[in-house]
Parts: sequence; C-alpha cells; structure tokens
Amino acid sequence: MKSAAGFLLAAKRCEIQGLEQLATTAELLGGIARLVHVLQKERGASNVYLGSGGSRFAAQRLQIIAEGAAAEAEVRQRLYRLDVDTGRMSGGARLFSRIAWVLHGLDALPALRERIAAQVLSPAQVTAAFSELIAGLLAVVFEAADTACDPAVSRALVALFNFMQGKELAGQERATGAAAFAAGRADASRQQRLLHLIEAQERCFQLFAEFAGSDTVALWHAQQQAGTLAELERLRRVLCATPADGVLDAELSDAWFECCTTRLDAMRAVEDALAAHLRTLCAGKISDARAELHDQKSLLDALVAGAPGGVPPVAVFFERALAGADGDPHANGELLAADGLGPQLGRSVLDMLQAQSRRLQAMSDELNAVRGALNERKVIERAKGLLMAHRGLTEDQAYKMLRQTAMNQGRRLVDVAEATLALADLLPSGP
Amino acid sequence: MKSAAGFLLAAKRCEIQGLEQLATTAELLGGIARLVHVLQKERGASNVYLGSGGSRFAAQRLQIIAEGAAAEAEVRQRLYRLDVDTGRMSGGARLFSRIAWVLHGLDALPALRERIAAQVLSPAQVTAAFSELIAGLLAVVFEAADTACDPAVSRALVALFNFMQGKELAGQERATGAAAFAAGRADASRQQRLLHLIEAQERCFQLFAEFAGSDTVALWHAQQQAGTLAELERLRRVLCATPADGVLDAELSDAWFECCTTRLDAMRAVEDALAAHLRTLCAGKISDARAELHDQKSLLDALVAGAPGGVPPVAVFFERALAGADGDPHANGELLAADGLGPQLGRSVLDMLQAQSRRLQAMSDELNAVRGALNERKVIERAKGLLMAHRGLTEDQAYKMLRQTAMNQGRRLVDVAEATLALADLLPSGP
Repeated sequence: MKSAAGFLLAAKRCEIQGLEQLATTAELLGGIARLVHVLQKERGASNVYLGSGGSRFAAQRLQIIAEGAAAEAEVRQRLYRLDVDTGRMSGGARLFSRIAWVLHGLDALPALRERIAAQVLSPAQVTAAFSELIAGLLAVVFEAADTACDPAVSRALVALFNFMQGKELAGQERATGAAAFAAGRADASRQQRLLHLIEAQERCFQLFAEFAGSDTVALWHAQQQAGTLAELERLRRVLCATPADGVLDAELSDAWFECCTTRLDAMRAVEDALAAHLRTLCAGKISDARAELHDQKSLLDALVAGAPGGVPPVAVFFERALAGADGDPHANGELLAADGLGPQLGRSVLDMLQAQSRRLQAMSDELNAVRGALNERKVIERAKGLLMAHRGLTEDQAYKMLRQTAMNQGRRLVDVAEATLALADLLPSGP
Repeated sequence: MKSAAGFLLAAKRCEIQGLEQLATTAELLGGIARLVHVLQKERGASNVYLGSGGSRFAAQRLQIIAEGAAAEAEVRQRLYRLDVDTGRMSGGARLFSRIAWVLHGLDALPALRERIAAQVLSPAQVTAAFSELIAGLLAVVFEAADTACDPAVSRALVALFNFMQGKELAGQERATGAAAFAAGRADASRQQRLLHLIEAQERCFQLFAEFAGSDTVALWHAQQQAGTLAELERLRRVLCATPADGVLDAELSDAWFECCTTRLDAMRAVEDALAAHLRTLCAGKISDARAELHDQKSLLDALVAGAPGGVPPVAVFFERALAGADGDPHANGELLAADGLGPQLGRSVLDMLQAQSRRLQAMSDELNAVRGALNERKVIERAKGLLMAHRGLTEDQAYKMLRQTAMNQGRRLVDVAEATLALADLLPSGP
C-alpha cells in the first residue's frame, strides 16, 4: 500500500467495494418493490372493505395481509443484515434515517389493521396511512439511488425509482377512483386529485423511459395491453368528466378496480425486470472490476520484475510537463534515457494512472448528470410542498403554479422551483 | 440494531464516522499545504538558480530541499496511515487515484532535482514540472472537499482549496515574473500569461472569501500589507505594461522575487488559519454529534422503560396521515388513546425521527449547493482545457472566449462551459 502502485490498486478495490454494496442494495430494493406491491393491494382491499361497510373483500383482505407478512419479513431481514459499514458511504446517515422511519411504520401496521377491521377509520384515512408508509419505502429507494457510485447502476436505480413512484401514483389513482365510484357521486376535488395523479404518473414513466434500457421500455410497452388501456381511459373519462355532483354508477366500481389492478400487476412485472437488470448489472460490473484489478496487478508485477533493482521507473512523471514547456527537446530526451529503461516501459505506470484517472473523472461527470435528474425531482417536490404549506394550495395547484410561472418566464421548471425555495423566507406564512 | 430506534442511532453513528474521517483528512490537508509551500519555494529558487546559470541561490536551493524533506515525509506518513476503509466513502476511488498520482510525482522528484543541479533544464521546464506536481497535490485537496459529508466542513474545505489554488497561481506569477526580469526583455506571450495568472488569482480569492469565515477573511485582509501590495502592483505594471521587446531592468528581479515571497509567506499564515479552523470545526462537530447520540440514547431508554412491556409506543406513526385525511377526528382520538400512553410520550420517537430527517435533508441541500460551487469550477476548467486542446488556444485565450460568449449571450459562465463540454464531439480536432 505504500506506493503509487499500491494506491492505484486501492482505488480499484474501492470501486469494487462500492459495487458490492450496490449489489446488496439491489437485493433490498427488489424486496421493497415486492412489499410495496402487497401494501398497495392491501390499501385497495381495505378501501373496498371499509367503503362497503365490511360486506366486501373481508376474506381477500386477510389473504393479502398473510401474503404481506412474507414480504415484510424479507425486507426486515435484509435491513437487519445491512452492514453497519454502509454508514461509511456518503449519505449513509440519510439512508439509515429513512430505514428507521420505515421500521417505525411497519411496527405500527398491526394496530392500523385492527382499526380497519373494527371499521373505525374512513377509506380516505386508510389511503392516507398506507400512502405514508409506502412513501417512506420509496424514500429508501431514493436514498439508495442518490448514493450509487457507478453511473450505469445509478441510471438503473433512477429508472427503478421513477417506475415505482409512477406505480404508486397509479395505486393511489385506483384507491381514489374506487372511493369515487363507491360514493356514487362526482366530486370536484376528487376529480382534480385524479387528474393530478394521472399527470404525475406520466411524468414518472417518462423519466423511467429516459433512464431505463430499451429492453425494459419495450417490455413496459408490451405489458400495456390495448384492451386494458382503452377500458382504463373510458373509466377515467367517466370519473373525471361527469359534472360535479352528477351520479356515478357504483356498479362500475368493480370494473375500475379490476382494470387498475390488471395494470398494477403488469407494472409489477416491469418492476421485476428492472430489479433483475439491476442485479445483473452489479454482478457484471463487479466481475469486470475484479478482472481489471487482476490485469493491473499483473502489469505492475511485470514492471517491477523488469526494472533494475526491482523498482518501477518513475522519472517519466515529469516528461509531459518538460516536453510542453519551451525548453530544449534534447534535454528532455536525455532525461528519458537516464531512466535506464525504454520510454515505452517507463510510461506504463503513468499510462495506467492517467487512464484510471480519466475513467473515474468520466464516471463522476456522468454520475453528477444522473444525480442532477434525481435532484431536479427533489427540488420540484420541495417547492411544491412549500407552496402547499405557505399558500394553502393542493398538490396539483402548486404544481400548476410552478409550471405556469416557468412557461410565462421561459425558464425551466427546476429553475423556478429552485428560485421558489430560495425565496422561502420571503413567502407569507400560510393559513 | 433491529428496530427503528436502532437505525435512528445508527444514522447518528454514521454521521460521527464521517466526521472522524474528515478530521483525519483535515490533518492530511494541513500537511499538503506545508508541502506545497516548500515546493513553491523550491520552484522559485530553482528558477533563479537556472536563470543565473547556477551563480545564484545554489545554497538556498539546497536548504529548501532539506526543509522539503520533512514536509514530504509528513505527507507520506499521513497518506500511508489513511484508513483503507476511506474507500467506503463515495469518491474514495477518485481520492486514491489522485494520491497514487501524487506519490508517483514525489518518487520522481530526486531525478528532477539532479537535472536541475546539472543545469540541463530550462527555467520554463522546471516551472512546468513543479506546477504539475503541485496541481496533483491540489487535486487531492479538491477530492477531499468534494467528498465531505457536512456542509460547514465542506464550506471550510472549499475555502481552503480555493485559497491554496490562488496561492499556487501567485507562486506561478512569481516564477513567470522572475523569468521575465531575468530575461531582461518584455515578451508578449509572457505578459499575457501574467495577466491571466493575476486575474485567475482574484477569482480564487473571491471564492475563498465567499466560503471562509469572516475571521479568516479579516486575517487575509490584515495580512495583505499596503506597502507590499503597492510594490507588487508597481512591479506588475512594469512587467505587463512595458512594450513587447522593450527592456526590463534585470536588477528588479530581486525586488520582484522578495515582494512575491513576502506575499506568499503571508498567504501561508492564512492557510494555516484555515487548516486550524478546519480541525477545530471537525472536533466541535464530532463532540456535538456524540452528545446528541448520548441524548438520543437516554431518551430512547426512558421511552422503553416507561412503556408497558418495555416496548416503545409506535401506533402514533400514522397519526398525521389519519388526521390529515377527511375522516372523523374522533376515530383518530381513539387511535391515540389505544396506545395506553399519553400522546406526548408516544410522539417522542416520531419527533426524534422527523427532526433527524429534516436536519439530514437540510444538510444534504446545503451540501449540494456548496458542491455546486466546486463543480462549477471543475466544469469551467474542463471547458477551458477542451478549447485549448481543440482550438490550440492558450489558457487565458480559452477563458476569455468562454467569458465573451457568456457576456454576448447573457448566460452564466458555467452554463456556457457546460454547453461547450456537451458539444465536445462536434468541435474540430486541434492542430
């Protein structure tokens, strides 16, 4: 470890460690995706159960809870096994803080379920409660995506996060629509909420398509069956275009629920493909990095063996600087000769160092770009939250205000969101 | 570790680990600042030695080399002691790669010095060679600043990095000016180089002032003695305003060298203050974080002790979501009562989680902002390098071209630099 070559190898070992951590994280996220899916199902079933005064979905609900137990146990096991050393990663504190939040929520689930069984909660309350827990699980995925140290893996994580987010919005759409049909009457604020959920989903799936591989995007298109989509759009039209206080056919509730569920199950297949891709990607990167480490070691050993006195040639370090300066090129030639080694061999360590440095720099640049996309989303979400708190707006009103301002000023949405956050102190406090 | 409370504490422990690594890094950077200072002296002395055909500074040069040995040994020791686990930090691979580069350069120093003693190199070559090594050392400081996980420490690191960079540009100004006086004749390209070095210094010191504490900025202003500054500006005027090919008084060489050296020594004092501030900051943060960890532990113990069956209350997790939904507030009240604990006590774990999460989020936002400033610098440097390589421009021509484009288009310099990098593939390849 006490030489340039030692640190060259140590840098490669760092990369390998980082990739191994990502592989562990990928397994965890696969488990989280499964748990979120079953919680989404439980939210839907609980809504129907409560909306029907306990007359429907009582057995289904219990079956889903039983299914969920296995998914929860898997996530808990993976969390408990998380190496405490993960904390050495930048952002480890944030990840652990998110995990604490999620565990707290999972611990509170049995009490929530008892209240649902006793029918002392409204469908809206249950939707809000499950959505809060799922948001916590998605926040774990977000932190994992934010701390990835490899750009390709980071892209795969961003694709997975956005897809999961879109799927969750689709799940909320299912619950909101089911409640609307169950109520039997169109309601303006619910309609606004549905339109917002539909629009926000589209944004998530666009970002997913931007960051996912073409195979997964093709799978997503294939999964969206034309028949289901047409039925979904027809029911969406009924939900959103019926005049406020107009009658909604409660009988459509089942068709809506089934149609949305078919769609969510199709999304689940895409999620699985994304998680599998992530695992394959990590495994491939780890094996590539190990092969590179092996090659670097062999080359360094050969250099040391070929050098006089077993010391690798170093004097060529300054070669470029000396050649670039306005000096006598002859002096420079002499310097090279003084190494007692062909310049070809002498250059090898330097070449390895420069190649590695260039590669790491390129990775870092690409990573910053991917993270930029993640951060944009975070900035927009926070600006929205700020407007909701300070101006008493709903989520979609806040989003529309940001978008309108961006269009009026010819600026990017994220720039307007950033400006909004920067002005936070100047905003009037809310009602 | 197997509970929400466990991960809450683990998050705090992660923060402490990160801060302890920063404290180690701070010691290393202090050593690097000392080594860079002595290398800058050696570069200056070697310039005078070579410029005078070996008749001047022969003894001083050897004395500086002896001084440098101690500084180099210290840095090497600190590097060797660097925990390999530093690699767990995101960006650890980049840091190690930079360190490998620096060690390679230090290994090559003795051979370079032999060439200088034998006077087979030009002053320009020697300046380029030392500048290359110092640039490598500054890159280590940059990577350390980029991987900091605490915004206050990150600000201090950005201030230190920019100050060191400014000081290095001042050192290059000393060497370039000394060579100009020694040559006895004004030279247009050297004058352009000097103007660039002066302007680039100003930018660095502005960034330093933006990120440093007011105490250090005040010290920097106090250190810049009016007399030295006036003399420096007078000599700068002589160097830059003498018509090309006009005579420069070689006798002014000593005055120039001394004046610049006084200034660099004053900078060294500010650098020391910055490094000391960094150490104090890390120590303070570590002790605060440990105290917070202790408080969190005590509070959690009290909660467990006060809870029935020794289990902390969790059901309040969903309280906010339930209260926020359009449900029956009475149902919500019931839920709280069902805990068998006052809501006050029940809320404590949740409050701790939320407070920690908010604090970590705020830190992360601030950190991103500080890193943004670092990245801007990197983007501008790389765009400059690209223009130099592809269009055969000098550094200052490239910078002026970027700045002019930004002014013409009413855009920020960093945006133009980013656009330049994005267009890299479209640029014609250089001469």
